[in-house]
Amino acid sequence: VIRIPTYVRGIKQGSIAASARPEIVRQTAAMTLIDAHYTFGQVSSLFATDNVVTKAREHGVAIGATFNSRHVGRLGYYPTRAAAQGVALLVALGNLGNAAAPFGGRTGVMGTNPISFGFPSDGQQGPFLLDFATTAVAYGKVMIARDKHEQVPPGALLDKEGWPTTDPNALMQGGALLPFGSHKGYALALMATLLSTVLVREGEDREGGDSTKVFFCAIDTRVFGDDESKLHGGAGGGEGVLRRHVTSAPQAASTVFEKVRATPPAEGFDEVLIPGEPERRSAERRRKEGIPVAEDTWQAIMKTASEVGVSV
Amino acid sequence: VIRIPTYVRGIKQGSIAASARPEIVRQTAAMTLIDAHYTFGQVSSLFATDNVVTKAREHGVAIGATFNSRHVGRLGYYPTRAAAQGVALLVALGNLGNAAAPFGGRTGVMGTNPISFGFPSDGQQGPFLLDFATTAVAYGKVMIARDKHEQVPPGALLDKEGWPTTDPNALMQGGALLPFGSHKGYALALMATLLSTVLVREGEDREGGDSTKVFFCAIDTRVFGDDESKLHGGAGGGEGVLRRHVTSAPQAASTVFEKVRATPPAEGFDEVLIPGEPERRSAERRRKEGIPVAEDTWQAIMKTASEVGVSV
Repeated sequence: VIRIPTYVRGIKQGSIAASARPEIVRQTAAMTLIDAHYTFGQVSSLFATDNVVTKAREHGVAIGATFNSRHVGRLGYYPTRAAAQGVALLVALGNLGNAAAPFGGRTGVMGTNPISFGFPSDGQQGPFLLDFATTAVAYGKVMIARDKHEQVPPGALLDKEGWPTTDPNALMQGGALLPFGSHKGYALALMATLLSTVLVREGEDREGGDSTKVFFCAIDTRVFGDDESKLHGGAGGGEGVLRRHVTSAPQAASTVFEKVRATPPAEGFDEVLIPGEPERRSAERRRKEGIPVAEDTWQAIMKTASEVGVSV
Repeated sequence: VIRIPTYVRGIKQGSIAASARPEIVRQTAAMTLIDAHYTFGQVSSLFATDNVVTKAREHGVAIGATFNSRHVGRLGYYPTRAAAQGVALLVALGNLGNAAAPFGGRTGVMGTNPISFGFPSDGQQGPFLLDFATTAVAYGKVMIARDKHEQVPPGALLDKEGWPTTDPNALMQGGALLPFGSHKGYALALMATLLSTVLVREGEDREGGDSTKVFFCAIDTRVFGDDESKLHGGAGGGEGVLRRHVTSAPQAASTVFEKVRATPPAEGFDEVLIPGEPERRSAERRRKEGIPVAEDTWQAIMKTASEVGVSV
């Protein structure tokens, strides 16, 4: 919700084409290239997700990309949606910009370049979900810290002179976020850029248009193992199909997660969690208790609402 | 070279089948499943790399996996090889074990679960190469620290009681490595496991055999953009093929790298480097000056050589 004012401004200024629809400009059995036509990134990313998931379920693997995309919201939504179809999904979005410094650098030259990866699991803890900015903290979380008048953790932010700071205002004043995990997070940030902005060579010639690109890679979790009848077109799992493996990948994932969760917790931890669990727990709690919104954020939303004549 | 004694022991004990050859057990246009038959992991991984690179150049994307694999050596070799063919390659290898603790855990429950990703570049700095263990330090580097009688950096290692230590001997005495970048590195470690050990459901039923599995995903860098004639089967780039984009992905990568390298260096850094550059510089230097080997490592190699009657 913190982005509502930005989205409304985008529609007003014409950078978001709220009623445009994504369009497939080129496809094969294994790949789909989509012009997002500057509609909401949520719309074009959902379209791309469903497209590559369908292709992956048919062929085992499929890649897709959108160009002329706008802000896609929470990246983790798309892999979670794919997981419900038994499909693992990697989503990456990286570009040049000024939000994030490279490892060893003093100023911002990249975006926060998030990566998300989901994998289905039959276990109670639900699907696996990796979903993070390749910076030490996400841009949105710095915005939240600013609105809450809190500091960001040390080691996450440089001021405009390139010195370490914990003041969230420094980011909007010409500072830059640092990569997580030093050179390793930096390498992942560049990987995200290579898979999206660099790999997709379209959408760059539109006058004045910055073309955000998003990369999708879907893998059917049946591809290397079970349910061979489906993947090989055998009729209804007939007797001619060799089925050596009764454990599906989502079942195997669940077994792995149980083993990892059984690790004794370290000092300061109550339990070992699987990536995706904290977010799902938080979602459940908020469905019951409501979603806390910082006062400054709420005021900004109210101001935007009144500007466009919406009563809240 | 630090693994030579382990490899020789593996051959003697029968866990490495030195003269076995990898075999394709199932394939489609988009995927290849390979039984490594316990040959050297270097041999089966090279086979898998060349296979998925060829398929990706034909279809845009291809995934492959080996099972019954042995230690694959330096993971970064394979993406570098793919990059020379204009193909981006992701390689991941993850399993359960006792080398690495999960985020928030006290004991080892996973391997060091390395990931590597390469992308071709036309620039002077050569191809991009991400190549790292998802632990704060790699297992092999702890072995080197032990042989050199050095400490490992703080924050990388737990002793067998789950307390932080910098003593490399702690790892072999029941300790565990910590993930890099806390929960983010941990999520990547599990991602590597899901893509290899979990996704591949074969090779687990062999008596007494632990089946190491390796995942490969190759993407032709022409897939979303340039050189459409090749990808769409057009004869020799005829006039009917629309070629809007003269910048290839490897050229675009080079442009991105130049911008990132131009970032002013932070305190304590001479320059901003692209992932893969430090390793390539080191390789060049060692080609001229030789490769330093720790005395303890050399003695272990000599001892192994004399045991198998090889004079060095």
